[in-house]
Amino acid sequence: MTAPSRYPVPELAALPVDIRERIEAVQEKSGFVPNVFIALAHRPDEFRAFFAYHDALMLTPGGLTRAEREMIVVATSAANQCTYCVVAHGAILRILAKAPLLADQIAINYRAAPVTPRQQAMLAFAVKLGRAPQSIDTTDRATLYAHGFSDEDIWDIGAITAFFALSNRMAHLVDMAPNEEFYLMGRVPR
Amino acid sequence: MTAPSRYPVPELAALPVDIRERIEAVQEKSGFVPNVFIALAHRPDEFRAFFAYHDALMLTPGGLTRAEREMIVVATSAANQCTYCVVAHGAILRILAKAPLLADQIAINYRAAPVTPRQQAMLAFAVKLGRAPQSIDTTDRATLYAHGFSDEDIWDIGAITAFFALSNRMAHLVDMAPNEEFYLMGRVPR
Amino acid sequence: MTAPSRYPVPELAALPVDIRERIEAVQEKSGFVPNVFIALAHRPDEFRAFFAYHDALMLTPGGLTRAEREMIVVATSAANQCTYCVVAHGAILRILAKAPLLADQIAINYRAAPVTPRQQAMLAFAVKLGRAPQSIDTTDRATLYAHGFSDEDIWDIGAITAFFALSNRMAHLVDMAPNEEFYLMGRVPR
Amino acid sequence: MTAPSRYPVPELAALPVDIRERIEAVQEKSGFVPNVFIALAHRPDEFRAFFAYHDALMLTPGGLTRAEREMIVVATSAANQCTYCVVAHGAILRILAKAPLLADQIAINYRAAPVTPRQQAMLAFAVKLGRAPQSIDTTDRATLYAHGFSDEDIWDIGAITAFFALSNRMAHLVDMAPNEEFYLMGRVPR
Amino acid sequence: MTAPSRYPVPELAALPVDIRERIEAVQEKSGFVPNVFIALAHRPDEFRAFFAYHDALMLTPGGLTRAEREMIVVATSAANQCTYCVVAHGAILRILAKAPLLADQIAINYRAAPVTPRQQAMLAFAVKLGRAPQSIDTTDRATLYAHGFSDEDIWDIGAITAFFALSNRMAHLVDMAPNEEFYLMGRVPR
Amino acid sequence: MTAPSRYPVPELAALPVDIRERIEAVQEKSGFVPNVFIALAHRPDEFRAFFAYHDALMLTPGGLTRAEREMIVVATSAANQCTYCVVAHGAILRILAKAPLLADQIAINYRAAPVTPRQQAMLAFAVKLGRAPQSIDTTDRATLYAHGFSDEDIWDIGAITAFFALSNRMAHLVDMAPNEEFYLMGRVPR
Repeated sequence: MTAPSRYPVPELAALPVDIRERIEAVQEKSGFVPNVFIALAHRPDEFRAFFAYHDALMLTPGGLTRAEREMIVVATSAANQCTYCVVAHGAILRILAKAPLLADQIAINYRAAPVTPRQQAMLAFAVKLGRAPQSIDTTDRATLYAHGFSDEDIWDIGAITAFFALSNRMAHLVDMAPNEEFYLMGRVPR
Repeated sequence: MTAPSRYPVPELAALPVDIRERIEAVQEKSGFVPNVFIALAHRPDEFRAFFAYHDALMLTPGGLTRAEREMIVVATSAANQCTYCVVAHGAILRILAKAPLLADQIAINYRAAPVTPRQQAMLAFAVKLGRAPQSIDTTDRATLYAHGFSDEDIWDIGAITAFFALSNRMAHLVDMAPNEEFYLMGRVPR
Repeated sequence: MTAPSRYPVPELAALPVDIRERIEAVQEKSGFVPNVFIALAHRPDEFRAFFAYHDALMLTPGGLTRAEREMIVVATSAANQCTYCVVAHGAILRILAKAPLLADQIAINYRAAPVTPRQQAMLAFAVKLGRAPQSIDTTDRATLYAHGFSDEDIWDIGAITAFFALSNRMAHLVDMAPNEEFYLMGRVPR
Repeated sequence: MTAPSRYPVPELAALPVDIRERIEAVQEKSGFVPNVFIALAHRPDEFRAFFAYHDALMLTPGGLTRAEREMIVVATSAANQCTYCVVAHGAILRILAKAPLLADQIAINYRAAPVTPRQQAMLAFAVKLGRAPQSIDTTDRATLYAHGFSDEDIWDIGAITAFFALSNRMAHLVDMAPNEEFYLMGRVPR
Repeated sequence: MTAPSRYPVPELAALPVDIRERIEAVQEKSGFVPNVFIALAHRPDEFRAFFAYHDALMLTPGGLTRAEREMIVVATSAANQCTYCVVAHGAILRILAKAPLLADQIAINYRAAPVTPRQQAMLAFAVKLGRAPQSIDTTDRATLYAHGFSDEDIWDIGAITAFFALSNRMAHLVDMAPNEEFYLMGRVPR
Repeated sequence: MTAPSRYPVPELAALPVDIRERIEAVQEKSGFVPNVFIALAHRPDEFRAFFAYHDALMLTPGGLTRAEREMIVVATSAANQCTYCVVAHGAILRILAKAPLLADQIAINYRAAPVTPRQQAMLAFAVKLGRAPQSIDTTDRATLYAHGFSDEDIWDIGAITAFFALSNRMAHLVDMAPNEEFYLMGRVPR
C-alpha cells in the first residue's frame, strides 16, 4: 500500500483531542479515514484552518448544489493533475450526483462532459480562475450572469476553486495518495 | 478612492464580535485596516478560516525567517499578477527585511533579485509549485535539500505558496484593491 | 445514451463485408461493439487503414508488454484530454495489467503513478513527443537507452504515441463517446 | 548527404514485393524515392497502413481540392516544426497550386498567407486541432459552416490534420530528412 | 551597490565626444546617469542608434501623450520581467502622469490598473504584440480604431512596443541594474 | 502584387536626400528595393535609427561570421513567424553561406538543421532570448562559453536577437510583405 504522505503520519492517540474527534467522526461515517486527514494532521493548526475553510465552502447551504461544488473540485483538480483530489472528490461526486460516469468524464475533459450549459459555464470559469487567475475579467463574469448565477454564486465558484488551488498544491507537496476505497465508490449501482 | 472589493463591504458594527476585534487590533497596530480584512468579512466563516490559516503559516516560528516567508508571497503573487498581494506584502517585506528595493526587485523578476542562492532556490521552487503544481518532482526537492532546507522548511515553502494560491485567486475574484498606504511603506528610511 | 459520434452511424448490414466481419468479431469477443468501430466505419477506407495500423502497433510481439503499450495510450490520451481513448484504453490497461487503479493514476498524473522508473521514462518520452514533438532531442533518447530501451523499443513508444495523436484528434473531431461498459471493466476483482 | 532516417534503411531488393512495387512506382513518377518511403519501409506492416491511410485522405475525391489538402499539411507540419513534411509537402503544394511562393508563406505564418478567407478558416481550424486538440468546440465548427464547409469537408480537414499529427511525430522520431530534390521543386516557372 | 552591467563600463573621459555630451546632459538634468547610458556606451555605434530610436519614438509629438507612451513601456517590460525598464520607466511614468501609484499598478497587472478603457485597449494591444507578435490580426486593429486610435497612433503603440522588446532583451543580456534613485522618484508628493 | 506595407508608401522623390540615397544604393546593389526600406521610410527618423542599428550589428567585423548572424535572424524570426524577415534574410543567408537548403532548414526547425554544435548552441540561446527573454540565466551563458564564445560574441548574438525582436514586431505591425525576388535568391547554383 502506498503511504498517505511523504511526511510523518501521526498516531491517532497522539493528536489533539479536537482533531482526533474529527477524524473519528469521518471514520465512523465513511468506514475509513481519508488520507487528507492523516496527512494534514502533521500540522494541527493548519489542519484546523484547512477543514474549517473546507466546511464553510462545501457544506454551507447556497446557490450551488453539493454535487455542483464537487464538479468544480474535480475539474480544477484534474487541470492541476492532482491524483488525491480527483480520485477522492470524484468518488464523492459520483455519490452526490448519483452518476457513476460523471467524475471520469469531467476529470478527463470537462468540455465534453454531459452537464448542463450552465454547469459548463461554471466549470469553464473555475478552470480559468484555477489555471490563469490573472486572466479573469468582466467578460467572464458577464457569461456567468447570463447563465443565471448571482454574485454570491460566483463567490462560491471562485472560492471553491481558490481553496482547491491550495489543496492541490498541498497534495502535490506531500505526495498525498488516495485511499484505495475511493476508486470504486459510487461506480456500482446498489 | 478605489473600492476595497466588488462585493458589499460590511459595517464594522454589524460584524461578529471576534471579527470586529481582529479588525480593530490590526487597525490599532497598522493605523489603517488592510482591505483584505474588509473584503473577506463579507463571509465571516471563511474570514475566520482564512486568517487562522494565514497566522499558522506566517507567524509560527520555524526554519524560514518572516522576511523569507514574505519573499515567497511576493514572488508567487507577482507570478499570478495579484495587485493586492504584491503591494501589501511587498510593503511588509520591505519593513521586515529593512530593504526598501527588495520587494520591487522580487516582484518584477525574482531571478535577478539580490537574494542569497539559498533564497533563489526557495523562490524558484515556490514559483514552480505556484504556477505548475503538477510539475514538482524529486529533483526539485533534492535542490532544496542541497541548499540546506529540511523537510519541515519545504512544507513551509510549499504551504505558504499554496495559501497564497488561494489568496491571489480570492483577490482576483473580488477585485481586491490595495490600500494606498501600502505603496509607500518601508520605502523611505526613517 | 450518448451517440457514438456526431457523424452518421452506418447500419451493420450496409457495411462492406470485411468491416462487418471485423466488427462482429470484436462484438463476439467483448460482448459489445466499441464506439470507435462504429464511428470510423463512416469511412471504410480510413477504417481499414486505422485498424491495420492499430494492430501493427498494439498486437505485434516486441520489447514492450501489451500493458506498457496501453500505459502509453492512456498517458498521451490524457494529455490530449481525449475522453474516448482514456476510458476505453484505461479499461484495457486495467485488464492487461491486472491493476484496477493504474489507469486512473496514469490518466490523472502519470508522474505520480506507481510504475517502474523505466516505465516512468517511457511515459515521459511519450507525453513529450505527444504534446511537443518538435522538442525531442538526443538527450531524450539517451535517457531511454539508459533505462535499457533499444532503438526498436523507442520506435514502438514513439509510433504508438504518434498513432494515438491521430486517434485522439479523430475522437475530438467526431465527438466520439466511450461505451458505458468501459467505465467499470477491470475495476472489480472477479 | 544526410541519411534518410536514424534507423536502418532496407535494401529495395529485400523488401516485400508490394512495398517494392509501391516504391518503384513513386520513383518512376517522381524521378526519385522520397525518404518517407525508405524510412518507413523498416516496418512493412506500418508502411502499408501509413500509405493506405495517406492515400485515402489525400487522393480520394472530395470537397477540398488537392492543393487545399496540402495547405493543411504544410500549415500543421510547420506548427510542429517538422522539416520533412514542410519541405516535401511544400513542394507538392507549389506544384498543385501552381504557386511558387505559397508553401513558404503558409509555413512561416499561415495567417499572413495570400489565401481566401475560407482557406484561412480551414487552416486556423487545422492548426488548432493539430496543436491543441482538446480545445476544439462547437464555435470552431460553426465558423467552418459559415464559410461553406460541410460536415464531410470538416472530417477531411480534421482527418488530414490527424494523420499528419502522426506523420510529423514519426518524422521527428526517426530524424527523417527531406530529399534535396524537394527544396527547389515548383519554385521555378517552366 | 550593484554594477550597472556585466560588461565593462567605460570611463566617461574615454568616450567619443557626442556620447559624452549626451551623458553629461542627462546627468545635469536628472542629477545622475541612468545605467542604460553607461551600459550601452560599451558599443558607441549601437548606443547612438539606440538613443536616436528612443528619442524618435518617445519625444516626438504625436497622438499619444508622453505618459501613455511610458505606460506602454511599463506594461510590456513587466510582461518581459525586465527589472531595469520597469523601475526606470516606472519612475518616469509616475512623474509624467503625476500618479504615484500608477506604475506599480500597471507593472503588476495592467488589466486591473485605473486607466481609461482607451488606455486599457492600448496596453492590451501592446502586451499582445510584445509577447506574441505573430498573433496580431485585423480584429486587434479594429478594437483600437473603435477606441479612436488612428493608424499613426497604432504605429506609435506598436513601434514603442517593438523598441522596448529590443531594450528589454539588451537589459536581460547585460544584467542591467536600475539606479537606486529610480525606485523612489515620483512616489512622494512634493 | 502584394503591397509592401499597410501604411502609405512614400514617393522616392519626396524623401529626405540621405534616405533617398540609401535606397538608391541598395537598389543599385540588389537590383530592387527591399520592402523594408519602403515601409520604414514612412517615418524618416525611425528609418535612420533602424538602419544605423542594423548596420552596426550586421556589418561590423566581429567574432561571428556574417552567415552566422543571418542564421540568428532566420531562427529567431521564424520563432516569431515573421514572413518578411524569414524570406528576406533567408535569401541573404543562402547567398552568404553558399548553402541553398540551409535557410529553410533553420526556419522550419533549427534543432534539426545541419549546423555545427557551436552554431546550435548559438541558435538555442538566440531563440530562448527572443521568445522568453526573462528566462536567460548564467547556465545559458556557461553553455556559450563552453562552445568558445566570448563575452563580446554573446553581446553580438543577443543584440542581433534583440534588434530582430524589434524588426519582427515592426513587420507584423505594418504587414510588411517580402519582395518576390527574395524567394528564389540563392537557391539555384550559378
